[in-house]
Amino acid sequence: MTIVSSSLKELEAHSNIDRVNLGQHVLAEFFECDSNILNNIDKVEKYMIEAALECGATIVQKCFHMFNPYGVSGVVIISESHLAIHTWPELGYAAVDLFTCGTKCDPKIAYEFLKKKFNSKNASFTELKRGIIDRETFKLSEQPFEVAEQFEG
Amino acid sequence: MTIVSSSLKELEAHSNIDRVNLGQHVLAEFFECDSNILNNIDKVEKYMIEAALECGATIVQKCFHMFNPYGVSGVVIISESHLAIHTWPELGYAAVDLFTCGTKCDPKIAYEFLKKKFNSKNASFTELKRGIIDRETFKLSEQPFEVAEQFEG
Repeated sequence: MTIVSSSLKELEAHSNIDRVNLGQHVLAEFFECDSNILNNIDKVEKYMIEAALECGATIVQKCFHMFNPYGVSGVVIISESHLAIHTWPELGYAAVDLFTCGTKCDPKIAYEFLKKKFNSKNASFTELKRGIIDRETFKLSEQPFEVAEQFEG
Repeated sequence: MTIVSSSLKELEAHSNIDRVNLGQHVLAEFFECDSNILNNIDKVEKYMIEAALECGATIVQKCFHMFNPYGVSGVVIISESHLAIHTWPELGYAAVDLFTCGTKCDPKIAYEFLKKKFNSKNASFTELKRGIIDRETFKLSEQPFEVAEQFEG
């Protein structure tokens, strides 16, 4: 995985500031997986749902799609953000995103679970902190914002 | 956004190898947005779908969820991967993922579109290359793999 953004260095230069992050994002690269599992939408969906439950997440919605001639894309929306997957069965590769917020879930548990289920012989992950804000701003967030219009449903 | 993976350095150390990437992943951080837009599921869904179309993607499925008391999570699955969003209206913040594969779509067009629609005064993005493989492997991918079982539908 190659970083091409310049904003990363800028953020690191300010790492001494008292900051918290709203979310944690694990970007997993699963190579050398079982291609037949990666091309089976039922199994991919089952394992993604189980991965969400394993790491302590609450499932809200899910949508999965089977591509022609092969490959599965799918997302599980959880109360704590989302889990997403795209598979390239012809390459034995799956790109998986495990995005959680709060301290209830550990996305790395989902990572280990899926690595095992996909039988990946060559897996790696990168963990990113999303929504980095300073503690002062975070405290301010306890104040409700003014709502002009709102959707109910 | 802070990188905590050690695999990044390992990859960079091998950057001279003739490699291609299957996907490109833009991780956008939209701060100082219009909170009322971020809390309106109809608008968030509309803009995410428009963003997908603007950057040349083909929409396959979508699912959006409104949280109580506020916040929207949603995903648009596209033929070229996915667009995902999580909003914290109380902080004026949205985390957006724009994951595309192939050369048809440019996720940065979607980034610019959403930045404008959310009226973000403080936005940044990181672009990652997903599914990095060497050209030799990629050529081998043209060979179909053996299917043991397959889901139709």
